[in-house]
Amino acid sequence: MASTAPFRVHIQNPPDDKLFEITTRQWQEACARNPEAAEGVEVSFASDDAGFTAAMPAADAVISWTSEIRKRFPCPAPRLKLIQCTSAGLDRLAPYDWVPPGVWLCNNAGTHSAKAGEFGIMAILMLANHMPLFATCQRKGEWHKAFGSVLAGRTVVIVGVGSLGGGVAERAKQFDLHVIGVRTSGEPHLHCDRVVADADLDSVLPLADFLVLTMPLTPKTRGMITAARLDLLKPGAGLVNLARGAVIDQDAMIARLESGRLGGAVCDVFVPEPVPPEHRLWTTPNLVMTPHMCADDPNTYNPSTLDIFFRNLTAWRRGARPPNAIDTARGY
Amino acid sequence: MASTAPFRVHIQNPPDDKLFEITTRQWQEACARNPEAAEGVEVSFASDDAGFTAAMPAADAVISWTSEIRKRFPCPAPRLKLIQCTSAGLDRLAPYDWVPPGVWLCNNAGTHSAKAGEFGIMAILMLANHMPLFATCQRKGEWHKAFGSVLAGRTVVIVGVGSLGGGVAERAKQFDLHVIGVRTSGEPHLHCDRVVADADLDSVLPLADFLVLTMPLTPKTRGMITAARLDLLKPGAGLVNLARGAVIDQDAMIARLESGRLGGAVCDVFVPEPVPPEHRLWTTPNLVMTPHMCADDPNTYNPSTLDIFFRNLTAWRRGARPPNAIDTARGY
Repeated sequence: MASTAPFRVHIQNPPDDKLFEITTRQWQEACARNPEAAEGVEVSFASDDAGFTAAMPAADAVISWTSEIRKRFPCPAPRLKLIQCTSAGLDRLAPYDWVPPGVWLCNNAGTHSAKAGEFGIMAILMLANHMPLFATCQRKGEWHKAFGSVLAGRTVVIVGVGSLGGGVAERAKQFDLHVIGVRTSGEPHLHCDRVVADADLDSVLPLADFLVLTMPLTPKTRGMITAARLDLLKPGAGLVNLARGAVIDQDAMIARLESGRLGGAVCDVFVPEPVPPEHRLWTTPNLVMTPHMCADDPNTYNPSTLDIFFRNLTAWRRGARPPNAIDTARGY
Repeated sequence: MASTAPFRVHIQNPPDDKLFEITTRQWQEACARNPEAAEGVEVSFASDDAGFTAAMPAADAVISWTSEIRKRFPCPAPRLKLIQCTSAGLDRLAPYDWVPPGVWLCNNAGTHSAKAGEFGIMAILMLANHMPLFATCQRKGEWHKAFGSVLAGRTVVIVGVGSLGGGVAERAKQFDLHVIGVRTSGEPHLHCDRVVADADLDSVLPLADFLVLTMPLTPKTRGMITAARLDLLKPGAGLVNLARGAVIDQDAMIARLESGRLGGAVCDVFVPEPVPPEHRLWTTPNLVMTPHMCADDPNTYNPSTLDIFFRNLTAWRRGARPPNAIDTARGY
């Protein structure tokens, strides 16, 4: 599908992230994997202001970090058709009124599925094996015996069964967990035994041995997991938060970990991030904390994002909606 | 297979372990699951000295804990044919010269496979996700970013592919790890891509991203993982010890966690146990400690042990070697 004018893609790397920077080699390899989509495409790279400013007048597409997009848009970009973000959750770009008319804003949902699935089942196994309790005991030098059971037959409720939650559901079925998904549509999901709509969340919380949060942060999900909802869980249930800190009442979670109402939690996301050194989260009992890293695999992240970009580009060229274009009304 | 004289089984519970005590209900359910084997069997229970002494003159079999067996044997038990221990590792009963001639000493290997498999893959995922590092950071209130990769394509070396190691190998294949087993015979294993004999251990250690220890403690395996062998691992490799503390040079392990030569460790077994409060293990960086619980599932432990007992009894009645009889020369 050659055309006479090149399709100009500008890749704006952040100035200070060598680990996740998109390299020319990664770009070339992605072009080799997607030869039809890459035909007639020219690329430019920058990680500074001058490079961005120089590229925008001619750019047909830009690939960049949400932090960069937020900083640099709106800006004059008369030929722009696609903004490809290197994140799945674009909540930091809301509200989306800055997106130029006719431009598709795309996320990289799908990139995180395999990695998040592994982290999610690890976190569930950690809860089943009392690892948050043992971490608390280790801080105190306490040999405290406790035993766990295999996962088979127990129930996990996964709120949000998109890329992250779907990855967790797939792994959960390998361990014979009973998987209940919660999503807006309530539509069935390949790896869930049952799916309910958001409106029915309260009816499934009492069934959960493990509650896994993997929904996007939107106006609807902000604060969704209230203190009252935590109290619908079984006493001693375990919590995993891979979504965003703001989807849960964090203080209520802390209080229920301190009281033992929640058996344990493994959380990758918090309010605020980074968690400051003196924050009470660090010393909350039965809480295992990770620094917002659960779904990002440096070995596969950029190749997957670039493959998604080429899928989006192919769809756009055919006049179709790019598959990873976000619905700015829903926010994901 | 009725016989006129009953076959008398005595179950000696420990005086102080309500969680793992074998109950009359568990016994009845096991009899119902194994009706042929249970035919003509009479049972007695005790958890005190008098009960044991009263039962032994007539007992054909005894089911008990290694701690009880060690304390109570040798003793007069003229009709005894089977000693069924409620452990897989009988190293605490060695040397085995106290076993009466003609009596089979049986372990419950197999009971721990599913639970240990889940713990093992959890531990490997924890190493891949830098959880020992994050636990160390959490103790200091430090938000320290680090990223992990999916397991697919990486290599795990599992020393000992019996019940525990086989369970770990089976789970590891679900995550597309390359699995190398190490065992005395060097015979192939269903869930290993490759198996080598003990003598070839040093040739596979340099290949390991993760080293998992699941061998029995025997005179041959005591101290098997020396400082020199740890130094054959890749820099930053991860270690999982589910075997016994004494199979590894624990001080050498600690030194290599402190230096960063080992990337992290998840250990369930130590020297000594319980680990005393002031021991340096508790503050060793990049070490996650659990209190010797990895393979014991209270929900499935006794039912599985009793099923194994009935398999052993059936074999004995047919004049065959009970499948879980240990080889007292090898020690497992």
